[in-house]
Amino acid sequence: MPNHDEMTRTVEAYVAAFAASDADAVVELFAQDATVEDPVGSEAHVGLEAIRTFYTHAVKIVTHMELDGSVRSANNTAAFALHIHLAMTPPMQVSVIELFHFNEAGKIVSMQAYFNEVNMSPIETK
Amino acid sequence: MPNHDEMTRTVEAYVAAFAASDADAVVELFAQDATVEDPVGSEAHVGLEAIRTFYTHAVKIVTHMELDGSVRSANNTAAFALHIHLAMTPPMQVSVIELFHFNEAGKIVSMQAYFNEVNMSPIETK
Repeated sequence: MPNHDEMTRTVEAYVAAFAASDADAVVELFAQDATVEDPVGSEAHVGLEAIRTFYTHAVKIVTHMELDGSVRSANNTAAFALHIHLAMTPPMQVSVIELFHFNEAGKIVSMQAYFNEVNMSPIETK
Repeated sequence: MPNHDEMTRTVEAYVAAFAASDADAVVELFAQDATVEDPVGSEAHVGLEAIRTFYTHAVKIVTHMELDGSVRSANNTAAFALHIHLAMTPPMQVSVIELFHFNEAGKIVSMQAYFNEVNMSPIETK
């Protein structure tokens, strides 16, 4: 099972991949049969092909992503908060809590994003 | 299913109950057959009697608890970050992400706390 530092490095690699708009680098972090539920309650993206399609779109609309606080971990799971900016009209910011559940090999087997329209707001511009 | 505002009010009632060191007020938020896993990976407290025992101790050792950012919700789950101070020697602070999963009646059926010793640090005093 990956330890706290290994899970934290994966979270940091995920944020860095978004900064580089590199969907392939995001997908590399996931296991073959992984699931992505973003937000929780929506239909999950299952397997690397569906996950690649999802993140190819996501890295385009996410214009900024940063960790809000430290990565918390317990057992095989990392939990962390993110501030995300989205290219929408108007541009929006959303405050998300995500969970990555890991397998023994240190790959993400399940990603769950928690947010609601209440957690979204327009980005104020001058 | 409780909506975002109802789940948020429960999280706020939980924080207020800790501020008042009121274990009964915490326990009232949980369903009869609820589980508390704090931290995730430890043995769960199952049912209200075990949960009452756990929180009777917890409200004594938690000297300060505050929300860090907004309550995020998706489906039947609220996710939120907390800064917590613990009466230990030396006094410690811990940065936690917690999940409350709710039943149809708006009671918490499962609580999961994510943190690691890495997320704990001594409180600096002058």
